[in-house]
Amino acid sequence: MSDTLKNTLARCRIVLCGPRHAGNIGAAARAMKTMGLSSLTLVNPAGFPSDEATRRASRAGDVLEQARVCQSLSQALADVSLAVACTARARDLSMPAMDARTAAFRLADVAAAQSVALVFGNETYGLTTAEVNQCQMIACIPADADYSSLNLAAAVQVFAYELRMAACTQARPAAQSGELAIQLATHEALEGFYAQLERALIETGYLNPAQPKKLMQRLRRLYSRAGLETEEINILRGIVRTLQHPKVYDK
Amino acid sequence: MSDTLKNTLARCRIVLCGPRHAGNIGAAARAMKTMGLSSLTLVNPAGFPSDEATRRASRAGDVLEQARVCQSLSQALADVSLAVACTARARDLSMPAMDARTAAFRLADVAAAQSVALVFGNETYGLTTAEVNQCQMIACIPADADYSSLNLAAAVQVFAYELRMAACTQARPAAQSGELAIQLATHEALEGFYAQLERALIETGYLNPAQPKKLMQRLRRLYSRAGLETEEINILRGIVRTLQHPKVYDK
Repeated sequence: MSDTLKNTLARCRIVLCGPRHAGNIGAAARAMKTMGLSSLTLVNPAGFPSDEATRRASRAGDVLEQARVCQSLSQALADVSLAVACTARARDLSMPAMDARTAAFRLADVAAAQSVALVFGNETYGLTTAEVNQCQMIACIPADADYSSLNLAAAVQVFAYELRMAACTQARPAAQSGELAIQLATHEALEGFYAQLERALIETGYLNPAQPKKLMQRLRRLYSRAGLETEEINILRGIVRTLQHPKVYDK
Repeated sequence: MSDTLKNTLARCRIVLCGPRHAGNIGAAARAMKTMGLSSLTLVNPAGFPSDEATRRASRAGDVLEQARVCQSLSQALADVSLAVACTARARDLSMPAMDARTAAFRLADVAAAQSVALVFGNETYGLTTAEVNQCQMIACIPADADYSSLNLAAAVQVFAYELRMAACTQARPAAQSGELAIQLATHEALEGFYAQLERALIETGYLNPAQPKKLMQRLRRLYSRAGLETEEINILRGIVRTLQHPKVYDK
């Protein structure tokens, strides 16, 4: 494996939100390792660590041992620049939605320099709307309309496979674009901007906190599509601050 | 699902040679069904049928019930026009070897009119040379060189997924991208937003018209990446207006 490929895959994190079955955690670790991924984060897992997880991980026990356990998705994504929500179907909160292959290419692009994450929900309910809203894109595995429910570890396998296929394509020296690499802002910086914006909208009366409707969700969707850079976030934060509190000049 | 796609996938058979773990048989059935495959053949399976297989099949119990059990691979492939041996690595056998994606396109091509099969070996040893020799091609899932051993059902999932992706491409009347369509705002609406934003930035002192630098250009670039919709422009214009002139409520 080339160093470029290795480094790109090392920046790809798999995040499992509230997995219920230890066997799936182990099987997901195995799926990851076969594709060269090693960074696993578990948000509030049930029954972990466990013998069942270790057994199903087969020779990927090291991925389980190094897995990070978090109390919240926000904590799991703090240093991540692009988080993709893996869902069984596109939802009506139309955040940018794409298929697994398209998402993998986008992720591999960003992972050439920054940390990215694929976020999976629990086995029964998938991701909550609040969890999806912490991601910048939605990706689905094209599946049969009548039975689209992949096993959790099977879904991790397909996404990890697509990520490896995309990263392999990009790791080839020939595949270089003329565009400069974009430095995407971290999850933490993004959330800081959204929090400031929401406060300002409430303080000025644009947003009624008693009836927020889907305003913040729409704004997240808009800025997610753009893929904000750190400096752009600083500009937007400065604009919100100054519009709300105009600068006073010495006369 | 279009009839063309349905018929193509109905002609794709998954053959498991001597599977040892009933759980894997069930998980393979589930993996198949999520991708629209239904034809499963088991050659000398251990412990089948079993509760464990049924449990792991989840809602794909029908695939298990209709599964055909054979005494030999030869019997399983009798009416098949193209059989592909799925192996962890290319062997020195002089048979055409390709990756899963390439093989899937070839299989989907043939399955438009004739029966094809993907043949998997048992969990411990994979396919024997005699079994591989009954196939016309070898296909591998590109995997990590140090740990290339996918779980059997996970391998079935990846191949079934690639088969579906290939069959969908072929069944589709015209090329479609993975992204969903959005209704972009007109040039006029966009320019109206930028003009209002610029005025507000000047009035509040964020932008010095004597030294504008490239601020507006940066903002245009940011919003261009997002590809704004008409309603989003209205929201952004409302936000700029309200931040600058907060709403006054009756006390």
